[in-house]
Amino acid sequence: MRDVAILGAGMTRFGELWDRSFREIGIEAGLGAMVDARVSSAQLDGVYFGNMAAGSLIEQEHIAPLILDYAGLGSRHLPAIRVEGGGASGALALHEGYLAVASGLYDIVVVGGAEKMTDVTDERGSDIASATADHEWEVVFGATLPSLWGMIARRHMHEFGTKREEFAQVSVHDHEMGSKNPNAHYRNRITLPQVLGAGPVAEPLGMLDCAPLSDGAAAVVLGPLEIARKYTDTPIRIAASQVATDSMALQHRREITTVDATVESAQRAFRLARRAPSDVQVAEIHDAYSIAALVSLEDLGFVPKGKGGPEFASGRFAHGGAGPTVNTSGGLKSQGRPFGAVGIAQVVELVRQLRGEAKDRQVSGAQLGLAHNLGGTGATSVVHLLERVN
Amino acid sequence: MRDVAILGAGMTRFGELWDRSFREIGIEAGLGAMVDARVSSAQLDGVYFGNMAAGSLIEQEHIAPLILDYAGLGSRHLPAIRVEGGGASGALALHEGYLAVASGLYDIVVVGGAEKMTDVTDERGSDIASATADHEWEVVFGATLPSLWGMIARRHMHEFGTKREEFAQVSVHDHEMGSKNPNAHYRNRITLPQVLGAGPVAEPLGMLDCAPLSDGAAAVVLGPLEIARKYTDTPIRIAASQVATDSMALQHRREITTVDATVESAQRAFRLARRAPSDVQVAEIHDAYSIAALVSLEDLGFVPKGKGGPEFASGRFAHGGAGPTVNTSGGLKSQGRPFGAVGIAQVVELVRQLRGEAKDRQVSGAQLGLAHNLGGTGATSVVHLLERVN
Repeated sequence: MRDVAILGAGMTRFGELWDRSFREIGIEAGLGAMVDARVSSAQLDGVYFGNMAAGSLIEQEHIAPLILDYAGLGSRHLPAIRVEGGGASGALALHEGYLAVASGLYDIVVVGGAEKMTDVTDERGSDIASATADHEWEVVFGATLPSLWGMIARRHMHEFGTKREEFAQVSVHDHEMGSKNPNAHYRNRITLPQVLGAGPVAEPLGMLDCAPLSDGAAAVVLGPLEIARKYTDTPIRIAASQVATDSMALQHRREITTVDATVESAQRAFRLARRAPSDVQVAEIHDAYSIAALVSLEDLGFVPKGKGGPEFASGRFAHGGAGPTVNTSGGLKSQGRPFGAVGIAQVVELVRQLRGEAKDRQVSGAQLGLAHNLGGTGATSVVHLLERVN
Repeated sequence: MRDVAILGAGMTRFGELWDRSFREIGIEAGLGAMVDARVSSAQLDGVYFGNMAAGSLIEQEHIAPLILDYAGLGSRHLPAIRVEGGGASGALALHEGYLAVASGLYDIVVVGGAEKMTDVTDERGSDIASATADHEWEVVFGATLPSLWGMIARRHMHEFGTKREEFAQVSVHDHEMGSKNPNAHYRNRITLPQVLGAGPVAEPLGMLDCAPLSDGAAAVVLGPLEIARKYTDTPIRIAASQVATDSMALQHRREITTVDATVESAQRAFRLARRAPSDVQVAEIHDAYSIAALVSLEDLGFVPKGKGGPEFASGRFAHGGAGPTVNTSGGLKSQGRPFGAVGIAQVVELVRQLRGEAKDRQVSGAQLGLAHNLGGTGATSVVHLLERVN
């Protein structure tokens, strides 16, 4: 297998982009990444595209050639392939792009992710998001993603004494970070009393525990590490790309306070890269619901099981804490949640951090970053370890 | 890159499978392929899954871990990844499985494809299929897949003098072949007067020029060629796996009587495998509409541009003709069209042909097979060359 590097990164602003179409935002992100990598379209070998539900959201399947075409690259007849795994679609597309370059069949590949969640009503958008849970065992009985994560939160509180205030702190942290991110959907700071006092969505989760439904796109350019310096002074090596899955329905899992897919994907990634959680300085984790951040920090190996709440509340994962610093982008809560774009946007943020280009969000001395992208309630987990090549 | 072989193949019957769920048929095909390959679940490294529109058809996205889970493999937390490209979803999934094994990261991989088209009304199913054309430039103005292929047929008749009877002959041929295939959706023979006299769908295409909307699933097991003989006496080598794309909307194409994506994917595949069209004895080509078969035979290089009609009507591609023998499975018209499963089912048929297990459909001396899978009106084309390893 060849070593694979990230040569460039780009993204749109996340938010309610009512004035811009799916194809427009896909192109902006992709071309942004190509300009950043100083790669011309003549050098491209293929495109991967992460997207959850364009069929349901904008009545358009088969979107990978569409985006390529509208980017003005249709006449080159490049391979263009869509990958889907709910909220993990972006990171899965990155995994496929990584394999394409690692195999030697492709050299330069653009991996993008996009979703247009706000072209439908909030209710319809929420239903479509819930199609990433088990339709026959969960959704037909009325379960939605927040209600399922709400059950996980209740059980986590019961088993480990996790406090409501502790996971509320995740949202406060995310908005603090996102306030410094010009691409973020929400750039306002919020307070603990605001999170605790927000209207309930699925108790104990309230409005401010839940990431929004957003529009947005993000992209990176991949290539073989051995030629990366032709394109960039700071190639970022993909030290590991690992995917793991679990049962879709919560009741079929071994337990619900651990997401085994996260545990497996992280352990495999650290083993392959010969690194440990303590080697990571900066991490983007999947905080679609505040409780998910705590569960993920435990399952990724950053804190022991059950200790996520107090450790998070202690400020350990904040800027300047013992680390790793988490969700400097603002995470899904503040930067936003365009499902298929999330996993790529996480990597865009890590690229900026590892290059030292994250401005007032910068984590000093960041050498190893981790991206953690989940689908549904964790039936898919993807972990990428990214390393600055000095 | 490692050489990749197909170790086993399996599929369900295609048809209106109202008594069986999406997950059931996915499992039947996958386990069938594993039994055929004599691979146990403990040996699996990952699963790829081709599917066009489960989100719209059965309100379920995120289906790759779902199928894995319902197959009883959830507890192994394997990677499971869905790939989508309209009617080419199956072959795209095979391309990704091929890269996964070729890269060296994965050894044994199951690649499946499934679609459940008949759980919605025919009208809704047709709308969903048309989501593989350009929504903003074609579908909102009323264009559907058959009407777009109907335009291609009219233009082909105008430019090359292709006769209505010539492409009608494709359907007669397909049903003749499909009558020998126990898994086919339609096993009845049909006559030329029947095709010509059938009700119009989008003139010049009538009811019997259009493949049905079917339910069904198909799967293959892939592994490195170097260890293939541990699993099978007749490994089938993937000599080439190539994807190409084009503009989605017909009016943006260079011309509409040539599908450039087919030309490109075929030329790349033959070049990579150092073979020529004349080396192929058996081919499964994408005949979603009868005219598509003629256009494809030209664009794949089997006959010169414009000669598809008379060459097909001459019986050249029939059993015992000069060859290659085309669509021994019955093709999409007779074997059926469960979109995401089509590209894998083509490969299942070729595996049977190359192993010499195709019974009264057998093409004698088949050594090299070609599978050609299209998305939409040809914005995606995937060509696989499969070779019997003696």
